[in-house]
Amino acid sequence: MKVNKKIIGVTLASSLTLSSLSFTTGNNKVEAKKDPEKAKNVIVLVMDGVSSSTTTLARWYKGEPLAMDDILTGGVRTYSADSAITDSAPAGTALATGNKSNDKFVGVLPEKVTTPGVDQSLADNPYKPVANVLEGAKISGKATGIVSTSEIQHATPAAFSSHAENRSNYDNIAEQQVYQDIDVVLGGGKNSLLPANRKDGENLLDTIENRGYDFVETREELLNSKSKKLWGSFAPSAMAYDMDRSQTKPEEPTLAEMTKKGIDTLSKDKDGFFLFVEGSKPDWAAHANDTIGIISDTLAFDDAVKEALEFAKKDKNTMVIAVSDHGNSGISIGNQNTSGSYSYMPVSAYIDPLKPAKMTLEGALSQLKADKSNALEVAALYGIVSPSAEETKAIKESSNLSKTLVQLLATRANIGFTTGGHTGEDLFMYSYGPGKPVGFVENTDIAHSVASAMGFDLKKLDSQLFMDAEEAFKGASISIDTTNKENPVLVVKQGKTTAEFPVNKDIVIINGKEKDLRSVTVQSNGKFYVSKEAIQTVKKGS
Amino acid sequence: MKVNKKIIGVTLASSLTLSSLSFTTGNNKVEAKKDPEKAKNVIVLVMDGVSSSTTTLARWYKGEPLAMDDILTGGVRTYSADSAITDSAPAGTALATGNKSNDKFVGVLPEKVTTPGVDQSLADNPYKPVANVLEGAKISGKATGIVSTSEIQHATPAAFSSHAENRSNYDNIAEQQVYQDIDVVLGGGKNSLLPANRKDGENLLDTIENRGYDFVETREELLNSKSKKLWGSFAPSAMAYDMDRSQTKPEEPTLAEMTKKGIDTLSKDKDGFFLFVEGSKPDWAAHANDTIGIISDTLAFDDAVKEALEFAKKDKNTMVIAVSDHGNSGISIGNQNTSGSYSYMPVSAYIDPLKPAKMTLEGALSQLKADKSNALEVAALYGIVSPSAEETKAIKESSNLSKTLVQLLATRANIGFTTGGHTGEDLFMYSYGPGKPVGFVENTDIAHSVASAMGFDLKKLDSQLFMDAEEAFKGASISIDTTNKENPVLVVKQGKTTAEFPVNKDIVIINGKEKDLRSVTVQSNGKFYVSKEAIQTVKKGS
Repeated sequence: MKVNKKIIGVTLASSLTLSSLSFTTGNNKVEAKKDPEKAKNVIVLVMDGVSSSTTTLARWYKGEPLAMDDILTGGVRTYSADSAITDSAPAGTALATGNKSNDKFVGVLPEKVTTPGVDQSLADNPYKPVANVLEGAKISGKATGIVSTSEIQHATPAAFSSHAENRSNYDNIAEQQVYQDIDVVLGGGKNSLLPANRKDGENLLDTIENRGYDFVETREELLNSKSKKLWGSFAPSAMAYDMDRSQTKPEEPTLAEMTKKGIDTLSKDKDGFFLFVEGSKPDWAAHANDTIGIISDTLAFDDAVKEALEFAKKDKNTMVIAVSDHGNSGISIGNQNTSGSYSYMPVSAYIDPLKPAKMTLEGALSQLKADKSNALEVAALYGIVSPSAEETKAIKESSNLSKTLVQLLATRANIGFTTGGHTGEDLFMYSYGPGKPVGFVENTDIAHSVASAMGFDLKKLDSQLFMDAEEAFKGASISIDTTNKENPVLVVKQGKTTAEFPVNKDIVIINGKEKDLRSVTVQSNGKFYVSKEAIQTVKKGS
Repeated sequence: MKVNKKIIGVTLASSLTLSSLSFTTGNNKVEAKKDPEKAKNVIVLVMDGVSSSTTTLARWYKGEPLAMDDILTGGVRTYSADSAITDSAPAGTALATGNKSNDKFVGVLPEKVTTPGVDQSLADNPYKPVANVLEGAKISGKATGIVSTSEIQHATPAAFSSHAENRSNYDNIAEQQVYQDIDVVLGGGKNSLLPANRKDGENLLDTIENRGYDFVETREELLNSKSKKLWGSFAPSAMAYDMDRSQTKPEEPTLAEMTKKGIDTLSKDKDGFFLFVEGSKPDWAAHANDTIGIISDTLAFDDAVKEALEFAKKDKNTMVIAVSDHGNSGISIGNQNTSGSYSYMPVSAYIDPLKPAKMTLEGALSQLKADKSNALEVAALYGIVSPSAEETKAIKESSNLSKTLVQLLATRANIGFTTGGHTGEDLFMYSYGPGKPVGFVENTDIAHSVASAMGFDLKKLDSQLFMDAEEAFKGASISIDTTNKENPVLVVKQGKTTAEFPVNKDIVIINGKEKDLRSVTVQSNGKFYVSKEAIQTVKKGS
């Protein structure tokens, strides 16, 4: 982080500091304390799509307590602005920006509010970008980082680092992430950095190198890097499931290793840091009703929480929050098999059938031959060992091996599922350290707790970072240059000054001369949004 | 409560007071504080069989926050000594006595420990009665009460007031409850008090009156009673579901009314009180996958929590704990219908289909004619209004109308279920007031927290209340008089003294003269268990 940015950051941060704050989100009015406890560092860890049954089952499978068990402090409501069951994009937006939003929306306000108790006025500025806690941390002079096992452009990490009207806009999300000046970025998603895969043909790898990152692609390179700016891209899209890695992607780091490296790197900043970590794939396994994948990556996530907690306990000035963004799959310990027998069935009745599995569903299926001749071996990899005649028949004759395998294993292990989608129940919240949220909260409250602990107010930050350009530059001549249609440029002419703002970048070109900004320019639903700093720069004319 | 009992109680209580205490339950070692915070009064409320999805759904149905939402403080593990999924008897035993136990066991130690992490030595004294927090409260001089919507002899209230090798031993459980000198007993279960229904032919109603209780059978009588000892028996077995009451049993009180009356009555004791309250029937509805019954009695339970909290907030010296004893039914918001659409389905998609229901499944089916000619009207009572042709066919041709109705409604409301039995996930814990447990705990820890707050140690209390008679009276002549085989009597002859201990009663007959004891004599698995007070009484010979 450059010194000049820090100085500006500190000044701006102090103007954002809250002395007292009250905000309403969802059904609950939250009165923050007059002087919220401050934390130098904040680590937010999200396990995607993990229900209570998931952590319970993972604990039995592991045979010992989870790291999370030590810091269970409350519960969280997860619904979105228009849906009882949230998807990851609005859930991530809630956790990162403090605003309930709509399906697909990343870091922008909703266009529709139907959920009882949610403030209707949220939809008054549909698609408007809203500041996230990472942006607040950065402006407060702290180092920042994002880590995920999915492609780093996936909904949840995207919500903590970008603004997009649709989570599938990987090109835009990737570009913003590259131009956000995040100090540590670790995960999958190399594809979206490469010119061949980008509509705008930009080579973001070059940008990453030009911006001073150490770009690493293997565990070895990651662990050996000494750089203060670190970009790790370990897979074209998502990284492997934890259980499969040693067999399919031994060069990838674990989530815990990425988390530890992130902490080690960021904690060198004397102003503190904000780190976001996602265990992305429990969700994907849950969509597939893959019990093994669910357990694999929930335990891997817990190992990451353990790293965060070990640092926080030593540091004594770090807030750690771990939550799931929504339930998934309606997983239960107990199913139709156990309706009459649950009361005397030992733990082993649920766990022993899972133990023979050597790979998750994804891992096992990756070993399937094109002619499917080794389906029984694949089933054995997935834990269906010594199959009965009935199981053998089901596997051999299956037209949907994925479905057959997860159903056979769930039946063996007495695990129930109700859906291939997300579920709407309240979830546990885990938190530790100064300023930590406790009790029963909205997912949006978590963002506000994080901001308070770092000494800024997200609403004030919104108005600093994202002003509608048409209003911001009222009186000036404004146009959008779409010569490069994938990379439109906002052009503002005021007096003798011509300012060009390329989309998704932290850059303004004033009369032909490039100048850094502290935040990215965002186009959302056609409109450009710019920061107060950008306006002042144009006013200044240089 | 008689004065002489109180004096003895206070002396004994002080000998049980803990200065520091460490105990191990399940997988977690819990270090209690050196000076645990004390609460004058403790109210424990158990909602039977309520999962997280249940409270979430009930909140959406109600359209406003639950009373419980304000006091969510952690989570609870629920498994038993030999089962990943507990039934209510060992769950109640854990919450009341601080010991994991086995299926069917009420207030007695397990014979089998298979759950990883549970102390094997728990099974060294199989079936041995262990003290519960109500007994501890009583001996500490506090007033006590139990309230439930089930028959009061049902597993959970039984575990807080009696000791039985099998939860179905209603005769024994009822007799112990009558002889426990509990100040307030409110619920269903009149059947087990009547000579016609009891194997021993005893008329416990007479005993209740002889012991100074005001015996009430209607809401009106309950609310008008001024007695300090109050026994309300409002139904032969269980009371009605909250939603059905006005139509089927208008003379019954609500759970909140029973709770408030219990508090009003018990709080007259200057030494404080312990009150146990169970919302029993969310569990029964969940077994039947009856969404309406689940919501009905979860909301009724929350109203009872509200009463407890209102008292505690005014009183400022009352601990309130609310928990569920186990999950049930694998209920989820979202099911196979929503696998692909959950992310944009509003709250109304889940709640509106439930709103037409006028009665729970039990209530609606109670209106079914013998010839089933009104099945469609019954379905409408249960909320299946304007049935489609397919629904009409399913209802008319159903061979299991109960199952058909719950499935049709769940499909309409996009609610999933995985089982007709209990489930094994960790659950939310709600607590308030001095000494309250927080964080992630074992169900057994809750009993120890309650005991600590009231100033006694359950393990010490065990050794005071339940000694094996063969060891306790070593050297004396001991026999069991089974003249009345349903009511065996322990006979101890020592020197010139003959002491007779009738089972399930707080009485000893010394040389033909009846004398009160402060706790009941229990026979479990053939063995008699007596208190230290009983031993001293025999030694004294009068």
